[in-house]
Amino acid sequence: MPVFKAPVDDTLFILNDVLGYERYMNLPGFADASPDIVEAVLQEGARIAEEVMLPLNQVGDQEGCVRHDDASVTTPKGFKEAYKQYCEGGWLGLAASPEYGGQGLPYTLHTAVSEYMISANLSLLMYPGLTQGAVAAIAEHGTDEQKNKFLPKMIEGKWTGTMNLTEPHCGTDLGLLRTKAVPQGDGSYKISGQKIFISAGEHDMSDNIIHLVLARIEGAPEGVKGISLFIVPKIMVGDDGSLGDRNPVSCGSLEEKMGIHGNATCVMNYDEATGYLIGKENAGLKAMFVMMNEARLGVGLQGQAMGEIAYQNAVAYARERLQGRSLSGAKFPDKKADPIIVHPDVRRTLMTIRAFNEAGRAFMLWTALKSDIAHKSDVEADVQEADDLLNLVTPVVKGVLTDKGFDHAVMAQQMFGGHGYIEEWGMSQYVRDARIAMIYEGANGIQALDLVGRKLGQNGGRAVMAFFKEVGDFCEENRNNEELTLYTKGLKKGLNDLQASTMWLMQNAMAKPDNAGAASTDYMHLFGLVTLGYMWALMAKAAVEKRAAGANGKEEFLAAKLLVGKFYMERIMPETALRKTRIETGAETMMELAEEAF
Amino acid sequence: MPVFKAPVDDTLFILNDVLGYERYMNLPGFADASPDIVEAVLQEGARIAEEVMLPLNQVGDQEGCVRHDDASVTTPKGFKEAYKQYCEGGWLGLAASPEYGGQGLPYTLHTAVSEYMISANLSLLMYPGLTQGAVAAIAEHGTDEQKNKFLPKMIEGKWTGTMNLTEPHCGTDLGLLRTKAVPQGDGSYKISGQKIFISAGEHDMSDNIIHLVLARIEGAPEGVKGISLFIVPKIMVGDDGSLGDRNPVSCGSLEEKMGIHGNATCVMNYDEATGYLIGKENAGLKAMFVMMNEARLGVGLQGQAMGEIAYQNAVAYARERLQGRSLSGAKFPDKKADPIIVHPDVRRTLMTIRAFNEAGRAFMLWTALKSDIAHKSDVEADVQEADDLLNLVTPVVKGVLTDKGFDHAVMAQQMFGGHGYIEEWGMSQYVRDARIAMIYEGANGIQALDLVGRKLGQNGGRAVMAFFKEVGDFCEENRNNEELTLYTKGLKKGLNDLQASTMWLMQNAMAKPDNAGAASTDYMHLFGLVTLGYMWALMAKAAVEKRAAGANGKEEFLAAKLLVGKFYMERIMPETALRKTRIETGAETMMELAEEAF
Repeated sequence: MPVFKAPVDDTLFILNDVLGYERYMNLPGFADASPDIVEAVLQEGARIAEEVMLPLNQVGDQEGCVRHDDASVTTPKGFKEAYKQYCEGGWLGLAASPEYGGQGLPYTLHTAVSEYMISANLSLLMYPGLTQGAVAAIAEHGTDEQKNKFLPKMIEGKWTGTMNLTEPHCGTDLGLLRTKAVPQGDGSYKISGQKIFISAGEHDMSDNIIHLVLARIEGAPEGVKGISLFIVPKIMVGDDGSLGDRNPVSCGSLEEKMGIHGNATCVMNYDEATGYLIGKENAGLKAMFVMMNEARLGVGLQGQAMGEIAYQNAVAYARERLQGRSLSGAKFPDKKADPIIVHPDVRRTLMTIRAFNEAGRAFMLWTALKSDIAHKSDVEADVQEADDLLNLVTPVVKGVLTDKGFDHAVMAQQMFGGHGYIEEWGMSQYVRDARIAMIYEGANGIQALDLVGRKLGQNGGRAVMAFFKEVGDFCEENRNNEELTLYTKGLKKGLNDLQASTMWLMQNAMAKPDNAGAASTDYMHLFGLVTLGYMWALMAKAAVEKRAAGANGKEEFLAAKLLVGKFYMERIMPETALRKTRIETGAETMMELAEEAF
Repeated sequence: MPVFKAPVDDTLFILNDVLGYERYMNLPGFADASPDIVEAVLQEGARIAEEVMLPLNQVGDQEGCVRHDDASVTTPKGFKEAYKQYCEGGWLGLAASPEYGGQGLPYTLHTAVSEYMISANLSLLMYPGLTQGAVAAIAEHGTDEQKNKFLPKMIEGKWTGTMNLTEPHCGTDLGLLRTKAVPQGDGSYKISGQKIFISAGEHDMSDNIIHLVLARIEGAPEGVKGISLFIVPKIMVGDDGSLGDRNPVSCGSLEEKMGIHGNATCVMNYDEATGYLIGKENAGLKAMFVMMNEARLGVGLQGQAMGEIAYQNAVAYARERLQGRSLSGAKFPDKKADPIIVHPDVRRTLMTIRAFNEAGRAFMLWTALKSDIAHKSDVEADVQEADDLLNLVTPVVKGVLTDKGFDHAVMAQQMFGGHGYIEEWGMSQYVRDARIAMIYEGANGIQALDLVGRKLGQNGGRAVMAFFKEVGDFCEENRNNEELTLYTKGLKKGLNDLQASTMWLMQNAMAKPDNAGAASTDYMHLFGLVTLGYMWALMAKAAVEKRAAGANGKEEFLAAKLLVGKFYMERIMPETALRKTRIETGAETMMELAEEAF
């Protein structure tokens, strides 16, 4: 039986000591999240994750979802009840607008607590996760009528939401999509077409499902400029909010997937289903991107969360499994063998995972805080700065944390030897589940292109310059602090590689865009290495200061923090040089090979 | 439906042009493998792989094996018939001794052709693969009586073999094993105990199963010094070779695994089953290592083979999938979109996989040739040199090719976007199947320790010094060849990093073995990078020479070869510096963290 304990202490350290969460008390909702409230919310979220969601994770994987002949879908045993508890606890609306029944608490807090629940049960958390994305899109682009009609029920969790983008022939390139919308003259449209890979497209956990669907209005321009976004409820909703007839949208089949079996991934058929335009005609992609950007952060969090639970289980196994002896002589001579945690290679593996997990957590919360500031501050300069950074790092959060989350699930699985390959032990599921996060909401190659091709150059590179300045200033300000030298030196070296690579891109990719494409994935990971290194430097500084101020029983926590950060700087940060070397190689070799020669 | 075309041309290029296979015609069996025979064998092996085995691969994954109430096991539909074809074609005994019915052809040829079949159907090939290992152990350590009794039937494929090492509480540390053997006074033993993870432990493809079982003779010393190896037939065999009673050994259950569903992975229960000692009392581990070393090469080949089929399917998809436009302007303006192979990031991915596949193939065949020389040459110096190198690189073949085979299956899967996550498309299976190769026959961390802790220092480092000299000499001899500068420079730089890291280990790991453990995995991959880089340099030289001698319609093949080698030197070889940096960090940080602080 897999183990999991939500890392509440680490979250609190990041929020309170690293990010100085209390400094933002002037933002709406933050005052309600005083330190004791935050801790209580985290503890309760941890409890739900550990006690309610974790026990259903393997059940969900083994049972999967079942589609019946009437096109209804049943979720795994226990999912419905756990989802109900989640909704009744107010978790779905934790950060949603109080105007529609949400609690209006910080998105940062929502992010912190969601990590625990995703670790415990990714498949289950996807149902409310998609609803939260749909809520964000309706809140931003819907009419007041639409908001009043749909948001309260969705925030309550009685109705769930979906995103319908992909069609069999198009995913990344939505300009090719064919689902069509025919205006009915009464403000509504008839939507027809097929969508695939629709998470939570059909299930038995809610009274209604609110599909957000990209379609092309008859006569609209070709390509992405002719795409509109529609609300298509599974069951029609009257003006008074009452449920009416079934709309002709149904689940044609469930996909057989590598993982996330507990989530219903549907082929959805729209047969002249009634839909309502949300946002402007032909501006659907923009509206969908509200959902998508939030969803990308959510998927990055999934990578982070999978890395965490995989780590915890690998540690538990490494402590228990007796096999062989320490290279430096038996550590437990009274036992038949030493636990494998005595071995350096096992420790190297575990510390690698952990060094990313802790920095990844800080990076997620740092980013979530930017989102809160961008959405809630009334100081224009703060909004712009936060929004710039949020936009800049969103593809890094998504691409890097999910690549690493998967890699680390694989590394953790390896600690189990043969048992890691047996489903009963649970490690295979983390690997299989984590794999999807690298793909959906824009495959990681697309994230890398988004970073290099769009985000870097936006507003004349304002965001990236601000980021470099922030990191550079940190190194400069702390360069004389001997306790931090190790961290600032490592960070500075990484930053230099990143800046040089950015410069290389500016000089070589404008005229030859293939050079940007050839560099993109390495650049994204280089950016991730530096960002996570920055998080380590911030954490090291906070740990040193906290220790100086009296650690209050946290000595071991702080010592471990500094040690894991040291490991990051020694073993992981040097990868920036390799990434830079690859980037500067350019596109020539890979473009020279003729297509037919592959 | 997944595609696969066996890379016969590439194999021939490696055998004929790179390794100069014809130079070894004086070795037994090699004369029978003249160039035209080799080509015919490869073509026929390719046909069986493509036409017989490939169509059963997904079936095997979906159906899996079934254990019935009587403890019998049924393999997936079609497996039995395909196995029969394989045996009737003489493939099982291709390289086995003619004395017992084998064809006595080179192991190198067996390796070449096995790659194709493993690509096509890993699970199916495991059945004969384990038999070949058991044949090797009996041939080396069995009595004449045992050889005569078991080998002909096994080489014919009528009986299959297994390796029984792992028990629930021990895998890596076999010294802990508990299965016991009680002498019966008539030369036989009663074997009792439970073995787990036994591939092909029970199935319906052969008339009998010959289990090789590690057990402890009553009263034997504790630890590895008290382990003996036994032959335990599923069905007793009379002196005349006739089948008799059922031996009390049976499959208790099948493991539910992440992949290789077509292979029966059994829990085997031995209840006073009759067994026969093979080799000497208490020398079982040594006898088993004959099997294990060959099996490790076979598992390395599995990594290689998975990388190849994953690559081919990713290329096919990248050519067909229309999505988006080239960054440098539409390449197929008449189509709705360009195929994704126009994108640099897709090409970077594909070329990365291919650069390892082609070098991996050369490395496999180079190693197999060493094995042939070591086993067949009558020139003592040649035997010693070949045996040294074979021993040295076995953990590198196993550890590096399987780590990379898995990574590359994941990268190939990524090319498919969402479709890669859907089982129907087949990419998930390659990932799930490839995962096991990193684990079994000694998890890759154990391979790394074997390399650093045992192989490096053997005979005063004679093998590694010989290898460094061979690679260094190659660089030196070809340094003035301008067409090869790119390759020799890259290789030399990698070699320098490897030599420096080896020196660091000699200076730092003798007194502090934890430094060896902390370096082991990075060192193994550093070794792999240089070895594969050496293969690229050899291939580049062969390509340049062949081109100069008149390419005879192979111009495109040779041009692509040189280009992919260039890619390896530009993008992959620089990783040696990172590995060196990590190695030189030492064990201190990872050992400092208290066990309870993980």
